[in-house]
Amino acid sequence: MAPALRPRPLPRALLFFLLPAAARLLIRPLLDPVLLPALYASLGLPLFALLGALYLVPALGPAPIQAGLKGRDLLKTYNDPIPESLGLVCAPIYILLLILFIPFAFSDSFVAQKGRAETARRGTVIHEFPHHQLSAYLSSLLSLLMATMLGFLDGLPIPIIASIPLLIAYYAERGATGVLLGSLLNLGPLYYAYMSLLSTFCTNSINILAGINGSETSQALIIALSVIVNDLLYLPWPVGFRIALPLHLLGRPAEVDFGGARHAGMAYGSRVLVERHLFSLYFMVPLVAVCAGFLYHNWYPARALPGDTLRYVAGMAFAVVGIQAHFSKALLPFFLPQIFNFVLSCPQLFRLVPCPRHRVPRLDSETSLLHPSKAEFKEKPPSAFATLILRVFATLGLVQLTTDEQTGAITATTNLTILNVLLVRLGPMREESLTKTLICTQVAGSVFAFIVRYGLAGLVYDGNRR
Amino acid sequence: MAPALRPRPLPRALLFFLLPAAARLLIRPLLDPVLLPALYASLGLPLFALLGALYLVPALGPAPIQAGLKGRDLLKTYNDPIPESLGLVCAPIYILLLILFIPFAFSDSFVAQKGRAETARRGTVIHEFPHHQLSAYLSSLLSLLMATMLGFLDGLPIPIIASIPLLIAYYAERGATGVLLGSLLNLGPLYYAYMSLLSTFCTNSINILAGINGSETSQALIIALSVIVNDLLYLPWPVGFRIALPLHLLGRPAEVDFGGARHAGMAYGSRVLVERHLFSLYFMVPLVAVCAGFLYHNWYPARALPGDTLRYVAGMAFAVVGIQAHFSKALLPFFLPQIFNFVLSCPQLFRLVPCPRHRVPRLDSETSLLHPSKAEFKEKPPSAFATLILRVFATLGLVQLTTDEQTGAITATTNLTILNVLLVRLGPMREESLTKTLICTQVAGSVFAFIVRYGLAGLVYDGNRR
Repeated sequence: MAPALRPRPLPRALLFFLLPAAARLLIRPLLDPVLLPALYASLGLPLFALLGALYLVPALGPAPIQAGLKGRDLLKTYNDPIPESLGLVCAPIYILLLILFIPFAFSDSFVAQKGRAETARRGTVIHEFPHHQLSAYLSSLLSLLMATMLGFLDGLPIPIIASIPLLIAYYAERGATGVLLGSLLNLGPLYYAYMSLLSTFCTNSINILAGINGSETSQALIIALSVIVNDLLYLPWPVGFRIALPLHLLGRPAEVDFGGARHAGMAYGSRVLVERHLFSLYFMVPLVAVCAGFLYHNWYPARALPGDTLRYVAGMAFAVVGIQAHFSKALLPFFLPQIFNFVLSCPQLFRLVPCPRHRVPRLDSETSLLHPSKAEFKEKPPSAFATLILRVFATLGLVQLTTDEQTGAITATTNLTILNVLLVRLGPMREESLTKTLICTQVAGSVFAFIVRYGLAGLVYDGNRR
Repeated sequence: MAPALRPRPLPRALLFFLLPAAARLLIRPLLDPVLLPALYASLGLPLFALLGALYLVPALGPAPIQAGLKGRDLLKTYNDPIPESLGLVCAPIYILLLILFIPFAFSDSFVAQKGRAETARRGTVIHEFPHHQLSAYLSSLLSLLMATMLGFLDGLPIPIIASIPLLIAYYAERGATGVLLGSLLNLGPLYYAYMSLLSTFCTNSINILAGINGSETSQALIIALSVIVNDLLYLPWPVGFRIALPLHLLGRPAEVDFGGARHAGMAYGSRVLVERHLFSLYFMVPLVAVCAGFLYHNWYPARALPGDTLRYVAGMAFAVVGIQAHFSKALLPFFLPQIFNFVLSCPQLFRLVPCPRHRVPRLDSETSLLHPSKAEFKEKPPSAFATLILRVFATLGLVQLTTDEQTGAITATTNLTILNVLLVRLGPMREESLTKTLICTQVAGSVFAFIVRYGLAGLVYDGNRR
C-alpha cells in the first residue's frame, strides 16, 4: 500500500484531552445548577461523536473495501482503493448520539414533572410535558434515519416521504402554539410544499456539489457552523454587545444589539425562540463534531470517502432544523454556493447540455493541477436555447466554450459546476487549493447571508426573522 | 435453476381484487362519515403492503443473490442458492406504509383543528392536538427503523438504545394522563427496566426460534393476529355478544361481555383504552399484511429467506405496541412458545452445554424427514450442573440423551430448541409438517393466553388488565 493511503495518524493527546473534557461537560450540571443544563450535554456528548468519527473511520476503513465499497480516487495518480461510503459509519454515530441525548434534552421536564407529581397528590394537576418538542425531536430523528437508508433505497422519493412526519409535527406544533396563526394560514399548503421540497433540496444540493477530497464534508461543516452562530445569537448571554454595521451608505445607521438588558440575545426574551434555537443547536453541534472528525480523514489526500450517506444525512439535518426550529427561510442563505451550483447545473440536469457521468475537474497528472472538465456535443449540436444559455454563461465568465471554427457552433463547454467555474475564473490549481477555495466561497456566502439577515433584515425579510 | 426454486407464481386475480378493495377502503370515509375513519385506512393501506410484499419479494430476489446475500437452504437436498435477507425488502415496505399512514391516524385532529382555528379567531383557543399520541407514534417508528439497521450494526445494544425514545414517550404520556400515577410510581424504575428488556426479548426471541422454512414469518404472523384479536375486543362494535367460558370447574360462572349497552367492547367506554388499541391495530395490521405476503414466498420449499431484519423488525413492532399501547404485560402470554424456547435454550446460550453454530433439525436426505440434531460433548464431559439440567429435561421428555455405555456420562444431547423438542416428542417428520406443528403450538399458546387473560384475569392479573 502506498504511504499516502496509510490511515492518518491520530495524536494520543487528543484522546487524553477530549475524554475528560467531555465527561466534565456532562457532569457539570449535576455539580452545580446552571441556566441551560441540556446545553452542557449538547457540548459534551458531541465530543464523543468527534472521537468516534476520528477513531472508527480508520478502524472500519478496511470493511467497506472488503465489501466492494471502494473507489479509486479519480483525481489522483495512484490507483490504491479508498474505502467509500464511510458516511455509513458517521451517520449512525450521529443518530445514536442524538438518541442518547433525548433524556438530557428533556431533563428539565423530568425535574419539573417530579415536582408536579407532588402537586398532583395535593389535587392541583397542571401537565406541561413539552410533547410538541418531543414530537419535533422524534420526527427529526426519524427523518435522519430515513436519510441514512436513502442510499439503499435509491429511486424512492425518500426525502418527500421523510418530510411527512416533520410536517405533521410542524403542523401539530403550530396548532399548539398558535404563532402567527392568521397570517400563516394564508400561505397554508404552499408553505408545506415549500418545506417538503426543502428536504429534497438540502439532501441533494450537497450531493451534487461533490467530487474533490473534503468538498462535501467541509460544506456540511461550514453550513452547520453558520447555523450554530445564528442560533447563538438567540440564546441568553451573560454579556451584552453591540455591532455597528457599515450601512451608512444606505442612509440609515444600522446597529444590532445582542444580549442587552434582558441578556436574551436576538430572542428579546421570547422563551419559544430560545427553545427553538436550542433545538437547532442540539442537532447541529454533533453534526459539526462528526463532520470534523470525518474531515480529518477525508482531507486531501483522502484516506476515506464519504459516499452518499453522509451527504444525505447532513442535508436532512439542515432541513430538519430549518423546519422544526422554524427558520426554514433563514436557512437558505447559508446554501448560497449550493443554490448557485444547482441553478448552474440545471442545463445539464435537464439534459439541454450533455451530462457526462463525472463532472469533476480533470487532473493533469504531469503538473498535478486540476483543469475544468468538458462536456462535448458529440451526438447532436446544441439547440438554440442551449446555445443561448451557454453564451450568457460565457459572457458572465462561468464557462469556457469550444466552438467549431467553420460554423461557429458550440462543440464543447466546461461542465456546469461551481468547481469548474472556480477553475475557469482562477485558473488551474491543485486539488487541495480548490477545496480551500470552495471553503472560502462557502464562508463568504455565510458572511453575506448574515449581513443581509441582520443588517438589511428590514428590507428583505419584512421584519419577520424566521 | 431447479424447478423448485422458480418464484412461486402469483394469481392475477389477486391484484385485480385487492387493488380496488384497498382503494375502496381508503376513500370510504371521504364518501360518508364513519365512526373511526382512520380504521378504514389502516385496513386499506396494508393491502398495498400485502401486494408490495407479494410482488417485490420475487422481483428483488435476484439482487441479494448478486450481492452475496444468499443462503443454501440447510434442510434441502438441492444446492440452489436462495436469496437471503429479504426482510430488507419487507421492513421498508412496512415502515414506509406506517409513515404514509400518519396523516390518516391524525386526520380527526386536523378536522378538529380547523374548527378550532375558527374558534381561535373569535378569541377562545383550546388546543388539543394529541401530541402525546404523535410522540408515541414517532418513537415507535424510530424504534422500528433502528431495528431495521440492527442487522448492520451487530454487536451494539441497539434494542436498548432504540427503547430510549419509546420510554421517554411513555414517560411523557404517563405524566400527561396521570393514569395510576400513585401505584405505578412505586414500580418506577423497575418497570422501565422491564420495558427496556422487553424490546431486547421480543427482537431476539423470534430470532432464535428460526431455522426451518416459514418458522419466523408464521410466528410473527400469529402473534400479530393474536394482538389484533385482543385489540378488537376493546373497540366499539355495533353488536354486543357474550362468551361463556367453561370455568364452572373453578367454582364461578365466568362470562365475558363484549359490546353491550355502550358498544364499547372491553374498553367499557374508556376513550383512552380505545385509542391505545387503535394505535396497536395501526401497527399490527400492516405487519400481518407484510408477513402474509412474505410467507407466500417463504413457505416450504422456500423461495426466499427472511434474514435477521424481518425477525428484528417484527419483534420490535411487538415491543412497540406493548409499551406504547400500555399492555406490555398482556403481550408476553402471546410469546409462550418463544419464552419456552428461550428458557430451554439457556443452557446452550450460557455454554453449559456445547452450542453448535446451527441448532436446526437434521435432514435425513433419503427419507426427507427431519430428525432432532445433536450437540456433542467433545471437548470435556458435562459439568454436574449441566448433567442435572439435562437429566431433568430428559425426564420431562424434552431431550434425548446419548450416554457412554461404560461410565454412564452424557456424551450428547438433542439441541435445546422447541423444534427439536417437537421432533423428540412427535417423532421425525417432514419440514412442512414441522412448520405446521409449530404454528399449531403458537396458536394453542395464544388461545391459552386468551383463556387465562379473560377467564382467569381476576386470579392472575389482579383486575389490572394492562
